[in-house]
Amino acid sequence: MQMIVRESRRRGKRIGLVPTMGFLHEGHKSLIQKAREVSDLVVVSIFVNPTQFAPNEDFDRYPRDMERDKAISESVGVDVLFTPGVEEMYPAGFSTYVVSEGMSSILEGKFRPTHFRGVATIVAKLFLIIQPDAAVFGQKDAQQCAVIKHMVRDLNFGVAIIAAPIVREDDGLAISSRNIYLSPEERNDAAILFYSLRKAEEMIRGGERYAAAVMREVEKIIRTKRTAMIDYVAVNDAESLTEISELQKEKPVLISLAVRFGKTRLIDNIIVQL
Amino acid sequence: MQMIVRESRRRGKRIGLVPTMGFLHEGHKSLIQKAREVSDLVVVSIFVNPTQFAPNEDFDRYPRDMERDKAISESVGVDVLFTPGVEEMYPAGFSTYVVSEGMSSILEGKFRPTHFRGVATIVAKLFLIIQPDAAVFGQKDAQQCAVIKHMVRDLNFGVAIIAAPIVREDDGLAISSRNIYLSPEERNDAAILFYSLRKAEEMIRGGERYAAAVMREVEKIIRTKRTAMIDYVAVNDAESLTEISELQKEKPVLISLAVRFGKTRLIDNIIVQL
Repeated sequence: MQMIVRESRRRGKRIGLVPTMGFLHEGHKSLIQKAREVSDLVVVSIFVNPTQFAPNEDFDRYPRDMERDKAISESVGVDVLFTPGVEEMYPAGFSTYVVSEGMSSILEGKFRPTHFRGVATIVAKLFLIIQPDAAVFGQKDAQQCAVIKHMVRDLNFGVAIIAAPIVREDDGLAISSRNIYLSPEERNDAAILFYSLRKAEEMIRGGERYAAAVMREVEKIIRTKRTAMIDYVAVNDAESLTEISELQKEKPVLISLAVRFGKTRLIDNIIVQL
Repeated sequence: MQMIVRESRRRGKRIGLVPTMGFLHEGHKSLIQKAREVSDLVVVSIFVNPTQFAPNEDFDRYPRDMERDKAISESVGVDVLFTPGVEEMYPAGFSTYVVSEGMSSILEGKFRPTHFRGVATIVAKLFLIIQPDAAVFGQKDAQQCAVIKHMVRDLNFGVAIIAAPIVREDDGLAISSRNIYLSPEERNDAAILFYSLRKAEEMIRGGERYAAAVMREVEKIIRTKRTAMIDYVAVNDAESLTEISELQKEKPVLISLAVRFGKTRLIDNIIVQL
């Protein structure tokens, strides 16, 4: 793997990386398409990263299907597939982590305290192994995008970070590998997430400026679904992730949420700019 | 700076980095000499790194003399001097750190809890900016060498780490920028450090296998000096830094110490292999 990448770099080709946890879907395909647009050699990594899961989370049952992933990668023209093992990425005695101290304890980090330490660490490792010119992440993981952009700036990684738009099912549900966990009723109820986010956008475009009012309305809409349990609904500055109480013009805001449907925890978000 | 380095790399030259906090002395010169031996382009960075000092430490009064450092660098044939400002390395909102969770809380880390977070972070940044093939550190900072080697392995930095031998004054005192803080009496007393370490080595070569007995003897010797206040004397595995109670053949051990003379805190160490 590293031979091909190194040789391509030597010949002046631009390397694009799409880090994934596999079980590739339409969302990933759109990331690969984006990487293709900005680079000559597209590398996709598939690694279900244990350090971004807490002990009580779904690391063991996270869906995996390497044969299918390989076929999909081939069909969409991925040049290099990087599929390291856990022992390769985390050898015995591993103990060095990359920590985003500002952004790791809010939003997702409040519910998953070690999550972004795991994300930043594995992405730093992938960047150092592959040395891409650009890397493409899904905007669905909005906080992940913000943490990675911050890491790249703080630690002087010379990697362009591209956040690609969320890909959705016909009823608006953001595509995610975790959607397969949902029962038919939960799957049906989960469409409320995007519906509630669009309602939030409508409210803001209609003149609402108070974040609290927007959040209250989103929560009210989600609670109409029997199987939905809200972890949080939040309004933050889209770049710095600082909390916003009153919306201002020309500052893009991130409205994000995490909601559990049975045992399945889904996240979604929308960025609104006035 | 980065232009010259990039162009050299493109032409296949090996880049050697010597990260320093400036106020260059014979110790640094030996590191530069070592870098010269293993690389085509020698880069020296001079940066008094605020994040490795605690608020109660000597960041403000740490000795600085950039004009002298420039002259010395020129005289020993340094190719590139990298002297960033604090705002360049730590822009507003900086919040991403590299943390060596295993090694940061023992030995020096016990007395300086945020020190190695600062060290690992600045070295990671320098590695990403300069992208050296090799980097040379002084063995005087033994734990720093171990932390950096561990970081390089854990985070896949492709940088060879070279620990260069300690350079000493005629009476054995390890050369350090902090030695200028010492009063004449303290300076005189400080020679006891290397004397005590050599006694430890003699004991081990004479058959002593118990770390506790070695440490007790070293402490006893140091206490003969009026101005000396011991922070710690320790015996550890030289590579993993795990504590050792009984010495074994063929395993190099690190005997290290930190001792305060008045307001000046000095460290020193010796590696003994049976």
